[in-house]
Amino acid sequence: MKDMLGREEVCSLKDAREALLKSSAGSGLLSEIETDIDFSLNRVISRDIVSPEDLPGFSRSTMDGFAVSSSDTFGASDSMPTYLNISGEVFMGKAPSFEVIKSEAAKIATGGMLPAGTDAVVMLEHANTVSRKMIEVLKPVAPGENTIKAGEDYKEGGIILRKGHKLRPQDIGALAGVGITKIWIYKKPRVAIIATGDEIVPPANSLMPGQVRDINSYSLAGLVETSGGTAIKKGIFRDSFEVLHGAVKEALNDADVIAIIGGSSVGTKDMTAKVINSFGKPGVLFHGVSIKPGKPMIGGVINGKPVFGLPGHPAAVITCFDLFIKPILRMLNGETEKLHHRLKNTVKAKLYKNISSGTGREDRVRVQLEEKNNELWAIPILGKSGLITTLVKADGTVVVPLRKAGIEQGTEVDVELF
Amino acid sequence: MKDMLGREEVCSLKDAREALLKSSAGSGLLSEIETDIDFSLNRVISRDIVSPEDLPGFSRSTMDGFAVSSSDTFGASDSMPTYLNISGEVFMGKAPSFEVIKSEAAKIATGGMLPAGTDAVVMLEHANTVSRKMIEVLKPVAPGENTIKAGEDYKEGGIILRKGHKLRPQDIGALAGVGITKIWIYKKPRVAIIATGDEIVPPANSLMPGQVRDINSYSLAGLVETSGGTAIKKGIFRDSFEVLHGAVKEALNDADVIAIIGGSSVGTKDMTAKVINSFGKPGVLFHGVSIKPGKPMIGGVINGKPVFGLPGHPAAVITCFDLFIKPILRMLNGETEKLHHRLKNTVKAKLYKNISSGTGREDRVRVQLEEKNNELWAIPILGKSGLITTLVKADGTVVVPLRKAGIEQGTEVDVELF
Repeated sequence: MKDMLGREEVCSLKDAREALLKSSAGSGLLSEIETDIDFSLNRVISRDIVSPEDLPGFSRSTMDGFAVSSSDTFGASDSMPTYLNISGEVFMGKAPSFEVIKSEAAKIATGGMLPAGTDAVVMLEHANTVSRKMIEVLKPVAPGENTIKAGEDYKEGGIILRKGHKLRPQDIGALAGVGITKIWIYKKPRVAIIATGDEIVPPANSLMPGQVRDINSYSLAGLVETSGGTAIKKGIFRDSFEVLHGAVKEALNDADVIAIIGGSSVGTKDMTAKVINSFGKPGVLFHGVSIKPGKPMIGGVINGKPVFGLPGHPAAVITCFDLFIKPILRMLNGETEKLHHRLKNTVKAKLYKNISSGTGREDRVRVQLEEKNNELWAIPILGKSGLITTLVKADGTVVVPLRKAGIEQGTEVDVELF
Repeated sequence: MKDMLGREEVCSLKDAREALLKSSAGSGLLSEIETDIDFSLNRVISRDIVSPEDLPGFSRSTMDGFAVSSSDTFGASDSMPTYLNISGEVFMGKAPSFEVIKSEAAKIATGGMLPAGTDAVVMLEHANTVSRKMIEVLKPVAPGENTIKAGEDYKEGGIILRKGHKLRPQDIGALAGVGITKIWIYKKPRVAIIATGDEIVPPANSLMPGQVRDINSYSLAGLVETSGGTAIKKGIFRDSFEVLHGAVKEALNDADVIAIIGGSSVGTKDMTAKVINSFGKPGVLFHGVSIKPGKPMIGGVINGKPVFGLPGHPAAVITCFDLFIKPILRMLNGETEKLHHRLKNTVKAKLYKNISSGTGREDRVRVQLEEKNNELWAIPILGKSGLITTLVKADGTVVVPLRKAGIEQGTEVDVELF
């Protein structure tokens, strides 16, 4: 069987990803919704956000002390203090009702508004109260010292955050600070999960001999949510062309991505491909990828929506998700790629045991992390990709690249953490 | 002023944290609720989970091929195949209605139930169909080869997950696999956020001269949610002992942790301490910690519940959260400390510019990450801790330890990512 790229059977990971991203990129008409900043954590903004005003709106003190004209303090020292008259006190949340003239100072607390005539604040610790009406200043202050100027955080009309930014706690704080409480965000991409297999039953069912429960819909739904998508578990469908065709047709109505898992009866693997092709061009883009686990994976596009056929082994589902669905979700959720995305989930560790691998495929080996003698070790978890326990025990994955026959014990490896 | 530890003023970070964790540990009576696995992602389980049954419940094939008695295939090769009669076909999701006797084989698909009399599966690729009733096997299989045995994933009564584990997608898959759809999880710790300051107004308000909007309730709420807690924004309270006392009293009813932010009028800083002490022993445990930003921080305990007084500068709120509230939340959400918690959010980078720091305090410097010439650089963001922009620009934090006067340009540093 040849794929859309004219290749025989198994496709390289790189080719498969490129074909898919290219073919579904056109559909990238992301929709947006307006939301309250209270519900915006970890959401991606769909428009540049501009400050409607200066932040702060006035020059503020960052210390408790005395607002002064800095030039009045030049030359002040412990042995030769400068004497200033107290012209008044700044009350919090109010504009001072007085001006400060030469050789005067005003009492001010952190956050207080600088009175007209002042440009700096002398810290309490650097002033002595001589009388109710006078202080001595023991140290000069520079213009602007211990203050935040009007507009120093944001200027009216200045960009606060760019489209494609994922909101962190401090970003939401900044929006609150300039009075923005409603924002536009991208809708989460919706992933329909279709489980197939005549032997699969829902977890709550009691089992008949030969039946197993649906593991993969649940782990895949979790992966989708973890990557900023919304999972729609469509249920379990019989291994029949009509049934599967109907399920995909329905899913196209309410999902942006479709994942068909399993279908392990003889002939079903090709059935998933046939169903995808039955919706027209481009249909299946690749069928079989040079990765392990996950080799029998199918990738295609229907009406601009990526559609995947994932092999039913639990470990294969996770691998295929990481390599294909996750990048698609990142594209669809509108987030701009940042440097630290790549870094955040990877740690260096020493490989505890040799890993052998076939060349010509990318092997993804599950590992457990352990600290021994102050060093971090990655212990390969051996076991069939059909076992869920290997994934439950694992902390992450080590990748053996396409052209390597394995990695030797003691080598420093990158572990992608779950 | 002396703190509870009999120390003058500023407390070391280590002492402050120990005093707080020790004093609030007794309150660690975490409550639990039952939930459906559909809503359990990233929740911490409050009881060990034991498998109610074997997974799988029967021996299954992991390949498409022929179920055989492995001993029948010993010695088989391309040049000297073993001939086996096809005794039947295994249908998915059904127990085979037949037995396989010596010199027989049964057609089977991935996931099919091994018929009685078989212990291994010959892959399709290693068998030729000679007739409708006979195959030749070209390669021997070992006992158990290409199968998953009954109970190989989980044995009935075996531990699946231990109390204190935070559920990942694959863990939820494993629970579904053994038919567990309801589980007990810890309730999320609730953090009451009390903003104080006569100058602070809600973000939706229009501003009068001297007023600023509430930034910190919003960024702190996001930090709490990010760390697995529930934030309860209580609102903004006037700088008055009675008002603040009332707010704290009310918050004690529905929160596990209380965070009082700001209070920047002269005298208010001590007022927060007075309010905490007014509820009885132990009250304030430390007032002032040798960190920057965040030095004026207050930590105490009321009725076993941790209560914090956080300085109002946005950068100080984040520092105090990371150092004090986050570990408390981890303790309260019941999660067992795992090795990769420490690792997950840290990357190594080279310092782009010298950082100078006072000895005798831990400095936490915000940095931006940038890749230049294939190396990762941490660029210190200079700027007052009162500015929210410094946090919005930053990707993470570099720590200058207590006894160091700074870090030199080019040094490899650990960056804690936001």
